[in-house]
Amino acid sequence: MSEIDLSGQAGGASAAGVARAAVLGATGYAGRELLTLLARHPQARVTRLMSSGRERKEPFPIEISHPTLRDRFRVLCGPLRVEELDAAGLDLVFLATPHETSLDVVPALLERGLRVIDLSGAFRLKDAVAYPRWYGFEHGAGAALAEAVYGIPELDAAAIRRARLVANAGCYATSVILALAPLIQAGWADLDAGIICDAKSGASGAGRTPSDKLHFPEVNENLRAYSLFHHRHVPEMLQALRLAEKDFTFAPHLLPITRGILSTIYVRLAERRTRDEVAALFQEFYAHAPLVRVVPAGTLPEIQGVAHTQYCDLGFALEEATRRLVVVSALDNLGKGAAGQAVQNMNLMFGFPQEMGLE
Amino acid sequence: MSEIDLSGQAGGASAAGVARAAVLGATGYAGRELLTLLARHPQARVTRLMSSGRERKEPFPIEISHPTLRDRFRVLCGPLRVEELDAAGLDLVFLATPHETSLDVVPALLERGLRVIDLSGAFRLKDAVAYPRWYGFEHGAGAALAEAVYGIPELDAAAIRRARLVANAGCYATSVILALAPLIQAGWADLDAGIICDAKSGASGAGRTPSDKLHFPEVNENLRAYSLFHHRHVPEMLQALRLAEKDFTFAPHLLPITRGILSTIYVRLAERRTRDEVAALFQEFYAHAPLVRVVPAGTLPEIQGVAHTQYCDLGFALEEATRRLVVVSALDNLGKGAAGQAVQNMNLMFGFPQEMGLE
Amino acid sequence: MSEIDLSGQAGGASAAGVARAAVLGATGYAGRELLTLLARHPQARVTRLMSSGRERKEPFPIEISHPTLRDRFRVLCGPLRVEELDAAGLDLVFLATPHETSLDVVPALLERGLRVIDLSGAFRLKDAVAYPRWYGFEHGAGAALAEAVYGIPELDAAAIRRARLVANAGCYATSVILALAPLIQAGWADLDAGIICDAKSGASGAGRTPSDKLHFPEVNENLRAYSLFHHRHVPEMLQALRLAEKDFTFAPHLLPITRGILSTIYVRLAERRTRDEVAALFQEFYAHAPLVRVVPAGTLPEIQGVAHTQYCDLGFALEEATRRLVVVSALDNLGKGAAGQAVQNMNLMFGFPQEMGLE
Amino acid sequence: MSEIDLSGQAGGASAAGVARAAVLGATGYAGRELLTLLARHPQARVTRLMSSGRERKEPFPIEISHPTLRDRFRVLCGPLRVEELDAAGLDLVFLATPHETSLDVVPALLERGLRVIDLSGAFRLKDAVAYPRWYGFEHGAGAALAEAVYGIPELDAAAIRRARLVANAGCYATSVILALAPLIQAGWADLDAGIICDAKSGASGAGRTPSDKLHFPEVNENLRAYSLFHHRHVPEMLQALRLAEKDFTFAPHLLPITRGILSTIYVRLAERRTRDEVAALFQEFYAHAPLVRVVPAGTLPEIQGVAHTQYCDLGFALEEATRRLVVVSALDNLGKGAAGQAVQNMNLMFGFPQEMGLE
Repeated sequence: MSEIDLSGQAGGASAAGVARAAVLGATGYAGRELLTLLARHPQARVTRLMSSGRERKEPFPIEISHPTLRDRFRVLCGPLRVEELDAAGLDLVFLATPHETSLDVVPALLERGLRVIDLSGAFRLKDAVAYPRWYGFEHGAGAALAEAVYGIPELDAAAIRRARLVANAGCYATSVILALAPLIQAGWADLDAGIICDAKSGASGAGRTPSDKLHFPEVNENLRAYSLFHHRHVPEMLQALRLAEKDFTFAPHLLPITRGILSTIYVRLAERRTRDEVAALFQEFYAHAPLVRVVPAGTLPEIQGVAHTQYCDLGFALEEATRRLVVVSALDNLGKGAAGQAVQNMNLMFGFPQEMGLE
Repeated sequence: MSEIDLSGQAGGASAAGVARAAVLGATGYAGRELLTLLARHPQARVTRLMSSGRERKEPFPIEISHPTLRDRFRVLCGPLRVEELDAAGLDLVFLATPHETSLDVVPALLERGLRVIDLSGAFRLKDAVAYPRWYGFEHGAGAALAEAVYGIPELDAAAIRRARLVANAGCYATSVILALAPLIQAGWADLDAGIICDAKSGASGAGRTPSDKLHFPEVNENLRAYSLFHHRHVPEMLQALRLAEKDFTFAPHLLPITRGILSTIYVRLAERRTRDEVAALFQEFYAHAPLVRVVPAGTLPEIQGVAHTQYCDLGFALEEATRRLVVVSALDNLGKGAAGQAVQNMNLMFGFPQEMGLE
Repeated sequence: MSEIDLSGQAGGASAAGVARAAVLGATGYAGRELLTLLARHPQARVTRLMSSGRERKEPFPIEISHPTLRDRFRVLCGPLRVEELDAAGLDLVFLATPHETSLDVVPALLERGLRVIDLSGAFRLKDAVAYPRWYGFEHGAGAALAEAVYGIPELDAAAIRRARLVANAGCYATSVILALAPLIQAGWADLDAGIICDAKSGASGAGRTPSDKLHFPEVNENLRAYSLFHHRHVPEMLQALRLAEKDFTFAPHLLPITRGILSTIYVRLAERRTRDEVAALFQEFYAHAPLVRVVPAGTLPEIQGVAHTQYCDLGFALEEATRRLVVVSALDNLGKGAAGQAVQNMNLMFGFPQEMGLE
Repeated sequence: MSEIDLSGQAGGASAAGVARAAVLGATGYAGRELLTLLARHPQARVTRLMSSGRERKEPFPIEISHPTLRDRFRVLCGPLRVEELDAAGLDLVFLATPHETSLDVVPALLERGLRVIDLSGAFRLKDAVAYPRWYGFEHGAGAALAEAVYGIPELDAAAIRRARLVANAGCYATSVILALAPLIQAGWADLDAGIICDAKSGASGAGRTPSDKLHFPEVNENLRAYSLFHHRHVPEMLQALRLAEKDFTFAPHLLPITRGILSTIYVRLAERRTRDEVAALFQEFYAHAPLVRVVPAGTLPEIQGVAHTQYCDLGFALEEATRRLVVVSALDNLGKGAAGQAVQNMNLMFGFPQEMGLE
């Protein structure tokens, strides 16, 4: 890190003030969203595209994977080869790759002097011991894990600015953490009563690999709960919110839509509070967060308000007498839940306004 | 009731063993579903169709409202006129009408010697005083309300068999009550911890009247929570389950699908129970309920398993150590949540097997 | 029919007047639909279920594949083994299998004295030479092909009644053939002007095998044309309608829905006709066809009018002066386009009313 | 452009090189899309928002209508009052209003020295006499109609640059005209054979006013043809392409999606051409059109490739021997079919690159 800090400011874009980025895993949905955002970002330039898909050996135009991007990128998408990347021509690598691939390539990228934003879960949990249980693999990259910064800009912008490796937060996790952080940090939640989060996500959150469960007629006109108590995003939520597993129930559901997450979160307040007090708590907490919007009292966020945007919208309903609070959080799982947040993290890392290119 | 019993057996179908039924409110979605079910019911015959819609003065073929029913019904749909209905040619009236219409016509129908199954909420709450708060009108039909039987066959078949007036349970309410009744009746739920029900419904549950909120582009690719703490089905759930309002949080959501409800219900068990014990509790409770299916352990119900059927499917996940139980309930809001249950109630009232025409 | 009844086997139902059927390929969408229809058919009984899927070795309850069918079938679904089937305990075999599987097993089934309704395309084309071009395989079962009857009951009921092997027509093909047969047989279409068919199908028509193209986010909120000029159903349409390939353009599209086909067909009339004449032509042609409905003049069929039904609905718009006619045809690809038509064919083969169990 | 620049007003952006725009009809879907595009346009600024909706008397934040736009516009949305608009503070007025409203306000706006881009159909047809038949009203604004320029930039950029009043082309019309213009202008289409256009549109094209036909459950899982031979966009297509009504059949369909149009267009070539010749014709015609993309040979455009973009994608399939050509055209009805094209027209009118803010 030191040489980068010395060369410029914290984060250091290249001489021209432009962050030159590679996107690895460019053919998936998060990859597409990253490319869409970076294409219109005033101070970023995509200089390399790579994909680990086995299906193509030769470099190919990315529009073959993503017809919306036709005519937008001249650079071809080649096979994933870390050895072709280095700090001479590149400032940053986005990884929109499977957990295992990220785990594999991050140490080499750091070694080559590159800064990395990893959209997978491979570097989100501080405790390497948690990986076998939640991800099914041993974590063999302890040094990188130790320096990784969990990437929710609203919670720890300072660390992200300095980071070499940002572990971009999960889509469900971002939605839940942003909704609960004000209450938890203020000590307003009655943890003994338990916090329940019923979350619903569009199908793009499950990635682009076909499967029985994601076959169109199986998802369409359907809703199903899955991974009750056992979703992979649970440990990062517990870690970020400093909650005990027994006090937090997370139930994800698969919605028959493409994009968006709505999380409905049930909290009992420790003490009686008024609606105005709760509203003020949220508004103050996010007063300087350009990509979190607290919706007006009496209204609730919905998925359409955030789909195809980079915002997380928050709202709530409160029964004052019984201290029952329902917080509703909405974001686009590919936007603030993935690629939008990754670009926001990039903005912090390179000294740009955090909302640049995201509004 | 006695004169009806005299004329035939308990419930009394007409001489030929056929229940002759009128459907009032035939042009809505619940009306269509009723007609679809009755058309294939071996012992029911639809002899009158009426609609309160102002738009048509002359009787019209019902296929104008419901193209799927083309060529199925010879009887035309006429304006809603109670005075044209009587016990000579008719055994039963289904009301698929707005609450206010049902409130209005039920006393006259009973007076004319007809048995009634009302799909609206007008006769569901035993306490007339609750109507202004939850339905926005004073309930002026106290005598009918007093004799009305809340219509969930799995809970009170005996009363339904004898009833002159059945208040068919609400769609959300059926879904939640069937999921919770075994636990509540067995005393297994820790009520102090609070029960939380996060329910999601397809848009047909909101009826056929166009509105901003139900305009296609507003519902499609969206999800929104609504009526937090204040949905009309709350009081019937509290009444049926004998729960206090403070202990039960109900949050409905509008899904971008046409049919189906999935309710995800969070309960803390009062004492530690094993998964097998919980499975046994549900299986025994519904051992003789042909239209409630407890799904195999380790699986969960989903909307596609019940859409276009008359079943309610139930399943659960349990964290034994922390006593956290999640019950998932799925039904078709137009099936077991409305018309299917109405036909099931009819079957009981007329001495037919309760699942006749419903499997 | 009398001679068939006398023979006591080929053609006849079993002693009790019940057709005992095996369903091979039970785990797919057409298989599910067949089971749903057969479960409520008053004179059919499913006695064997088989599936060629490699994934399961042991017989399993069919509800594992089809949760809607929970509690409906006692018989387990076993591996596909023709040698276990014979005319002693079985009257009929439905094949809801891939083309190649059908090609493989049909000769053996016929040899074992069983009647067969094949939902695949393996026996639809009279000319074996056409198979390599349209299906990509050589057709090695010429004898069976020679005796196969193309299964659209409205066109050739007599042959179907006598058939040992019915090649159930394709979903698109049924939709188009029923729409055009009256015009072509009457000689009203100007073939030189060319007939154009723009067809749109729900995704269940593509089967249950996951693929990139059928992954939920790729189909949802999308529409795409495919197989222009080259769809497999073209040759069976040409054959049934006796059209030349050059005069008939067929363009299928994939709709973001689960069930239903709408075909919009453009014909120039050879001579000037009035709307009433065209309406009369269709009405007379289908006067005795219980599962084809000609919609009232001035209206057009739509998918919702036929989804989850076994009907094909037909309507049209005509510009009399310019002789431009647009015929619109709607059916459920799993209903009249597959399983419904298969059951209708069974009804003919066993001497039942053709609409039995289908309305 | 020079004379306009000299005049200092009609045509020119304001001193700072920024076009100051009012959006009238801001609460509809086209209004929302315009605002979304203008918010990120580097040289446009929205200074007034007006809506003719009766429901609100007081100016209100536009996020009440469009939650996605929360925090994006400071200016409130007021009632539609032409007299509050003038050339001192404003360069341009976008009308996203009903036909009748546009007809009403355009003359006054022109009189007040303002340039206008009208997204309605009120000024698209050169022949005032056509209005009663196609729009149901007499056209009383003949002077404005005479000077209106039909707004498809790819066809007549020069006239648009100079225009005071641009009649933004219809969504279906843009899709069809862009697909056919190369063929028609080159004289390659056999007009006697007739051109058939089967078009499919998402529901946002029908606007934001609720109705029976656009109620969610009526559109979802459905497809229907409508307005056969009689859609309002027919005359503008005939006019732009110089086709006779008898030679052009247009059949629109309502898709169960929110955004996007796919038009499948059937043409017989007058003479035999190769696929390469047809590809070259399209590529050359659109070589300098940044918002029209000709997709690679062997592929076809689909709605997902253009949804949420401002492009029109074109592709084709050709049977060389029989001269049967199918052209497929895809665009977002709110993008290149409405707001995107309006901004493209604005760019021309104000001397900006035509694709500014649109890629």
